[in-house]
Amino acid sequence: MDVRAQAVASSPAPASAPMKTNVANIAVLGASGYTGAEVVRLTALHPNIKVTALTGDKQAGKAFSDVFPHLVAATNVPKLVKIDDVNFGDVDAVFCCLPHATTQEVIKKLPSNLKVVDLSADFRLKNPATYAEWYGHEHAAVELQKEAVYGLTELYRDQVKSARLLANPGCYPTCSQLGLYPLLKAGLILPEDILIDAKSGVSGAGRAAKEANLYCEIAEGINSYAVGSHRHMPEIEQGLTEAAGKPVTISFTPHLINMSRGMQTTSYVKLAPGVTVDQLRSQLTSTYEGEPFVRVLPKGVVPHTRHVRGSNYCLMSVFPDRIAGRAIVISVIDNLVKGASGQGLQNLNLMMGWPETTALLQLAMFP
Amino acid sequence: MDVRAQAVASSPAPASAPMKTNVANIAVLGASGYTGAEVVRLTALHPNIKVTALTGDKQAGKAFSDVFPHLVAATNVPKLVKIDDVNFGDVDAVFCCLPHATTQEVIKKLPSNLKVVDLSADFRLKNPATYAEWYGHEHAAVELQKEAVYGLTELYRDQVKSARLLANPGCYPTCSQLGLYPLLKAGLILPEDILIDAKSGVSGAGRAAKEANLYCEIAEGINSYAVGSHRHMPEIEQGLTEAAGKPVTISFTPHLINMSRGMQTTSYVKLAPGVTVDQLRSQLTSTYEGEPFVRVLPKGVVPHTRHVRGSNYCLMSVFPDRIAGRAIVISVIDNLVKGASGQGLQNLNLMMGWPETTALLQLAMFP
Amino acid sequence: MDVRAQAVASSPAPASAPMKTNVANIAVLGASGYTGAEVVRLTALHPNIKVTALTGDKQAGKAFSDVFPHLVAATNVPKLVKIDDVNFGDVDAVFCCLPHATTQEVIKKLPSNLKVVDLSADFRLKNPATYAEWYGHEHAAVELQKEAVYGLTELYRDQVKSARLLANPGCYPTCSQLGLYPLLKAGLILPEDILIDAKSGVSGAGRAAKEANLYCEIAEGINSYAVGSHRHMPEIEQGLTEAAGKPVTISFTPHLINMSRGMQTTSYVKLAPGVTVDQLRSQLTSTYEGEPFVRVLPKGVVPHTRHVRGSNYCLMSVFPDRIAGRAIVISVIDNLVKGASGQGLQNLNLMMGWPETTALLQLAMFP
Amino acid sequence: MDVRAQAVASSPAPASAPMKTNVANIAVLGASGYTGAEVVRLTALHPNIKVTALTGDKQAGKAFSDVFPHLVAATNVPKLVKIDDVNFGDVDAVFCCLPHATTQEVIKKLPSNLKVVDLSADFRLKNPATYAEWYGHEHAAVELQKEAVYGLTELYRDQVKSARLLANPGCYPTCSQLGLYPLLKAGLILPEDILIDAKSGVSGAGRAAKEANLYCEIAEGINSYAVGSHRHMPEIEQGLTEAAGKPVTISFTPHLINMSRGMQTTSYVKLAPGVTVDQLRSQLTSTYEGEPFVRVLPKGVVPHTRHVRGSNYCLMSVFPDRIAGRAIVISVIDNLVKGASGQGLQNLNLMMGWPETTALLQLAMFP
Repeated sequence: MDVRAQAVASSPAPASAPMKTNVANIAVLGASGYTGAEVVRLTALHPNIKVTALTGDKQAGKAFSDVFPHLVAATNVPKLVKIDDVNFGDVDAVFCCLPHATTQEVIKKLPSNLKVVDLSADFRLKNPATYAEWYGHEHAAVELQKEAVYGLTELYRDQVKSARLLANPGCYPTCSQLGLYPLLKAGLILPEDILIDAKSGVSGAGRAAKEANLYCEIAEGINSYAVGSHRHMPEIEQGLTEAAGKPVTISFTPHLINMSRGMQTTSYVKLAPGVTVDQLRSQLTSTYEGEPFVRVLPKGVVPHTRHVRGSNYCLMSVFPDRIAGRAIVISVIDNLVKGASGQGLQNLNLMMGWPETTALLQLAMFP
Repeated sequence: MDVRAQAVASSPAPASAPMKTNVANIAVLGASGYTGAEVVRLTALHPNIKVTALTGDKQAGKAFSDVFPHLVAATNVPKLVKIDDVNFGDVDAVFCCLPHATTQEVIKKLPSNLKVVDLSADFRLKNPATYAEWYGHEHAAVELQKEAVYGLTELYRDQVKSARLLANPGCYPTCSQLGLYPLLKAGLILPEDILIDAKSGVSGAGRAAKEANLYCEIAEGINSYAVGSHRHMPEIEQGLTEAAGKPVTISFTPHLINMSRGMQTTSYVKLAPGVTVDQLRSQLTSTYEGEPFVRVLPKGVVPHTRHVRGSNYCLMSVFPDRIAGRAIVISVIDNLVKGASGQGLQNLNLMMGWPETTALLQLAMFP
Repeated sequence: MDVRAQAVASSPAPASAPMKTNVANIAVLGASGYTGAEVVRLTALHPNIKVTALTGDKQAGKAFSDVFPHLVAATNVPKLVKIDDVNFGDVDAVFCCLPHATTQEVIKKLPSNLKVVDLSADFRLKNPATYAEWYGHEHAAVELQKEAVYGLTELYRDQVKSARLLANPGCYPTCSQLGLYPLLKAGLILPEDILIDAKSGVSGAGRAAKEANLYCEIAEGINSYAVGSHRHMPEIEQGLTEAAGKPVTISFTPHLINMSRGMQTTSYVKLAPGVTVDQLRSQLTSTYEGEPFVRVLPKGVVPHTRHVRGSNYCLMSVFPDRIAGRAIVISVIDNLVKGASGQGLQNLNLMMGWPETTALLQLAMFP
Repeated sequence: MDVRAQAVASSPAPASAPMKTNVANIAVLGASGYTGAEVVRLTALHPNIKVTALTGDKQAGKAFSDVFPHLVAATNVPKLVKIDDVNFGDVDAVFCCLPHATTQEVIKKLPSNLKVVDLSADFRLKNPATYAEWYGHEHAAVELQKEAVYGLTELYRDQVKSARLLANPGCYPTCSQLGLYPLLKAGLILPEDILIDAKSGVSGAGRAAKEANLYCEIAEGINSYAVGSHRHMPEIEQGLTEAAGKPVTISFTPHLINMSRGMQTTSYVKLAPGVTVDQLRSQLTSTYEGEPFVRVLPKGVVPHTRHVRGSNYCLMSVFPDRIAGRAIVISVIDNLVKGASGQGLQNLNLMMGWPETTALLQLAMFP
């Protein structure tokens, strides 16, 4: 479907619908980080959203454009306030952009009727023991975790539509699972020996002032990090295990690249006996046919992170490996959009009954 | 005005209006360069524009997304064709993104009823002798040059509305004149000794494969270029001369910065006797009050090119100089948007009678 | 050994030695590319080298600093000339930085007493049939190919010392083999299922003016390329086959990163039965003990490409994989130094009987 | 003089000289920042320097290569210690890389026989009142300030040779004064209306973890900062006042560029009556004739920061301005080398009686 047709499809419900149905009051908790800013950027032209609260405990009292001057034209958003000063009675839905652990504490205190899109890791892992193992402490809101819906939209759209508390996937899990989940589900690749070599821009590390993320420390270079210990690993395994119908253990090695935005996963997989690379491509193509935000590229065409910059699109492609019986699945996304706030908005659109693509059809910015 | 209010103001005319009035067929000539791609990106969600022809003589026959894969979701645009294969009878307006000189030849052969937004330098200089001096050959379409309207929108909005052939300003002239023109016009700064130190991203040099623009030649470094000889100089002087009511000769030194997009002009000016820096700021503030795309920042706040990336906004500010009687005027734009295709669309919107901000209210992308 | 001790060890032979022994005349063929410039940069302070000819057919007649202004202080180097105008009778050794195929034609015409360090791919593959398969034409200097010594210095030092024609390894083969060869040789990893995910800076693509390598096309993004078809693949397989003592087929996927210099190979390997990751580290540590340019980092420390920038060093480390029985070997080099001209000089030093580290002990430049 | 000739000229004194004369023990105070690391990088191959102490109060106890992994091959340097744990009785000279204010306190406690190269701003301003005005507190070591020699080497070489406490110039003052001082001194340009538009890489801001210097905040963009209030302004004015023989007030506007290293000053000046631009070039050429580290480029050639990266060179050029009677002087340096540690070493070489260029002749690294 092209963007124009989608834009038409995305047009708001008939004008006869009551106003309150169409315009929701949204709070963004933890708005002083990059994902918070991205929510404001993306929703600025959303016809159904009015941002009525922005929280940032350390920055409370400041105009949002003092914290994010690129949003100086978004003059309709309120000042930053402390989270305790938000009147949630006036709020219809919340984007939660807080750090993990804090998130649990905050969300469990929110009115239980509020729709919540949580961008943290807190509600992604269904097994509290897995959470405890990877995050080093017991989960403090186990009941909520049971309620949470995992929001990899293309794979769980129906559940998302009826979600109240949505666990928005991590960037690496989004990028890698979009390519691998349908192939495993269809039994076209083996669940053993899946190796994911991932590359990410620096914005994934957030806006906290850390020496390791200074310009001079990052520019003109790359490095692996968290080799064998990245917290997105159990999240990916959880999804792939579901797809395979049996436990999947993956190899996952993230790399930090000197770019602000962008993510690629290069996944090395084994074909099931008798399966060809063309069958993998066919499977992905049919899985994502009609999907507004996923594009399976033609044979031989390589996706670039540059070609999704600033957009909610995921591009992917499949290649034969030189080692017989193997294939390479490559996916790219913008880690802050499809990998965070964009997918969050895609999910909220579904949760609120709005057209899924509303305010998300901006094309990638290149160069 | 905030972006939401503007979006409402920009909503299309009542549905009862005839379709033909509301949707125009647009051709983009020379679409295989960065400004052409930017026209397609920006117009993709424009409710009144249907791109019906894209030309690129060397790339004719290719799908547009083969040439610009970041626009893979813009599946409603046609293949690239040779300019001679366009049926201009079906076209309502043209974006001309061709090189100078070629442009004159092409535009003078177009049907004279076509609205034309020309992004080249060919119709910007009103005096053909100045053109000949700076471009090394006689102008080949002098009659058309007389007809052309110079499209620095905020300064010439009324003329733009009735333009048929619009000469879209250069990026440096847009950035610098927005800051300087109103001050000169108001007599607040002197027309002598205006020094403009300008900085630009590399996309201004286009997509031609030149050694000097290779990644390795540009990365992690800056340099001045065309010192004292840049072709945007006479264009800026033409505007400032008009503003001052007397001949203005400027100093203009452009610098190439290792960034794809973005432009800053740092202008060093002399205050007219008795004038203060606060008066400059007041003048700019009142000049641009209500303007959708220009923001005069509060005292002491410095504009960054990062804060307009991908958007049609211009941010500016004024500072006292340490040398008494002097001031510094700083403006930033995205050279491909407000400095080229975005302002081109802003002008076309006016020329076609559509709301000026249509499809241009995307906020800047940061980080 | 620390750099100071090495510098002392590298000090020239006693002053009583005849001058001719100590100072050799060097020609750099194809000096107008990045590897040629790097040879000049590195040899500028070499006490035994005098560059007496620099060739560049298209740039003949120009001062070298007109072509590479960063070498403006290297005023002792001659102008660029055509290769046919070089008097090779006065030359002791040659760095050949020409494109493949051309190289064969040029080298076979050189006086057969000349020492040659060839940075092209022409003499790296020992089997002419493999060359023909990957390069699409028969090898034109098969006899010379038999004579050539493959110059991965740390692995073939003894042969290098007596080489006349040295085939300097490719950057990817250098980076990956330094990590994998000793492990395969020792039987600690299996020869099956070796997957190399490689990342390179753009300078590896040379200085030719190609659209794909423009700043705007590269900045702030990454992409895979030549998936399954890169010409360094057979070179790596040749080396690993030798190490394993049986045919090795690898998976090799290069990625282009937005940086000028730097290379990382992330290699995914299977441990031989009963072998531990600590044994891999021990093997590498003992293999490279006393090596001036290879450093095996302590357990858990990740090498960064930034930390070898501009230097001849290779940093490596080994990590356990989350999948049992697997390990991850990571190596980084500067593709233009250890991956090209630096290793070339290291080899020439050996071939000429000079201390191996002469003029190569500059530390990495960071930030 | 070419680099080879200089290297010969730089060779150490005859071997008969007593060892103590030739190898000095050096301490680097505040070694955990970029300028400290740069001192270690540059001195690693210095035949007369042994680094015997590195201080970093917060990092005390760590190996230096844990703090700066790019120096992993510099295994001869000691661990970081607290400054109070240094035995200064064993030290011959000190590089002081501490923050201003702290520096005064530290240096006044050092043994008074120690040679000190101070890279902070603390001893650059000769007038304590000026210091107090710009730094907001009284100078705490006024007596030492009287003793300090300002180390812009090319301008004050004789004083440097006999200095005990050397105030190493700031990066902006080095870059701008090298171009302007000789012209003012010769009366070729007017002392009025000197405007310096300066551009710097981010390493000038140091390694402190500040949000403003994160990769994402800096990448792909520029901005002015400290407009009219930068603390290098009085330092430049001090020098230019001396050159002009009368008070000079300058306009100085620094810009932060998305690069780690590099600095350019674009200075807009007025010619003295009757003076031509060629005279300016001649003056600079004759001033710097024979200087090892300054190169005046030929007419029309523009210096790039890329062409001095990692080196101690300064490139400069002069251009006519379009405004009659004006000229543009452009200089570039690497802010961490000629703008900090490199010039510091150049000065120490002179202070110790070693050849001035020792360990400083590395050519620039490009790309």
